[in-house]
Amino acid sequence: MANSIITISREFGSGGRTIAKKVAEELEYAYYDKEIIEEVAQSTGYTPEYIAEAGEYSPTGNIFSYAFVGRDQSGISAADYLWIAQQKLILDIAKREPCVIVGRCADYILRDMEHVWNIFIHAPLEDRARRIVEKYGERDTSPEKRLRDKDKKRSVNYKYYTDQEWGKSQNYHLTLDSSRLGIDKCTDIITGLVH
Amino acid sequence: MANSIITISREFGSGGRTIAKKVAEELEYAYYDKEIIEEVAQSTGYTPEYIAEAGEYSPTGNIFSYAFVGRDQSGISAADYLWIAQQKLILDIAKREPCVIVGRCADYILRDMEHVWNIFIHAPLEDRARRIVEKYGERDTSPEKRLRDKDKKRSVNYKYYTDQEWGKSQNYHLTLDSSRLGIDKCTDIITGLVH
Repeated sequence: MANSIITISREFGSGGRTIAKKVAEELEYAYYDKEIIEEVAQSTGYTPEYIAEAGEYSPTGNIFSYAFVGRDQSGISAADYLWIAQQKLILDIAKREPCVIVGRCADYILRDMEHVWNIFIHAPLEDRARRIVEKYGERDTSPEKRLRDKDKKRSVNYKYYTDQEWGKSQNYHLTLDSSRLGIDKCTDIITGLVH
Repeated sequence: MANSIITISREFGSGGRTIAKKVAEELEYAYYDKEIIEEVAQSTGYTPEYIAEAGEYSPTGNIFSYAFVGRDQSGISAADYLWIAQQKLILDIAKREPCVIVGRCADYILRDMEHVWNIFIHAPLEDRARRIVEKYGERDTSPEKRLRDKDKKRSVNYKYYTDQEWGKSQNYHLTLDSSRLGIDKCTDIITGLVH
């Protein structure tokens, strides 16, 4: 039987990553988030920082994306090359073991597999602003602007690679407002899907 | 303490109404769907059929919406007049008793009230097509076209009155794919919100 896979996409500051970790712990599933970046770094030779950055920008909007063109053999952009490597890795991971995968368009990449649950976590802007200041501290730019920029990047990147709308309910089996429901209730609902 | 209210918006053919009824039964909440249309008919003098129709069209897209102008005292369109009557009724209902309200932009109308849970139910087009043929029979137009027309009307009507996107996950506390989750699991997750 195919492995159960839970993909979690999330708005920045919604606590989606915390929920994903808790779900993985409770279900005793493997957890993939930055681990994906590290594995892609190993297989491609790019730095984890560059890969993390590329994953949040759409290639069309990223002036750096062609800076490395020619490192791969096919003449495609660095960002597209990384996308292909990441896509292959996520498909491999899904065959490897039951797991929770955070972000990286995994919902779209695994769309043809059975037993995949696609979840989106969001929360109102003001709650997310409070959360990122508590977690990452104050910055020069306001937390609201930081959130809008980050959401915009994720949304454009997702659209570029999947041709779908990020956060549109129809793309997910379940979407949750983590602010209203709370972290524990979100975790319970998600773990309840595979029980 | 304010009443707990569950609003359920749904794609046509997703089984959202069936889920809403089950939730109301299990929680022993009042259930409002066509009941709203009948109460608005009583208070305004319009026929239930006209009100049902108006609730699915945006006034700008409905050539009939000005046919009755002048029946109210203010010179506003019939559709806007009905919207105001419906809005007032939904606010009254919410104060009356714990309840489940299906459609009619109730999520938006009750946005400033406490203890309101906003849910959106959707399902893939092919599953909804099968469902509406089972439920309502074949028609001259294909089930896919009937679904797209109905979704479009609901979406445009919702946008006109709320200035929000119908089905956008951020507008709801919870959205569910009823096809993947099944009617009973959806019912359990929703009743679990208020337990």
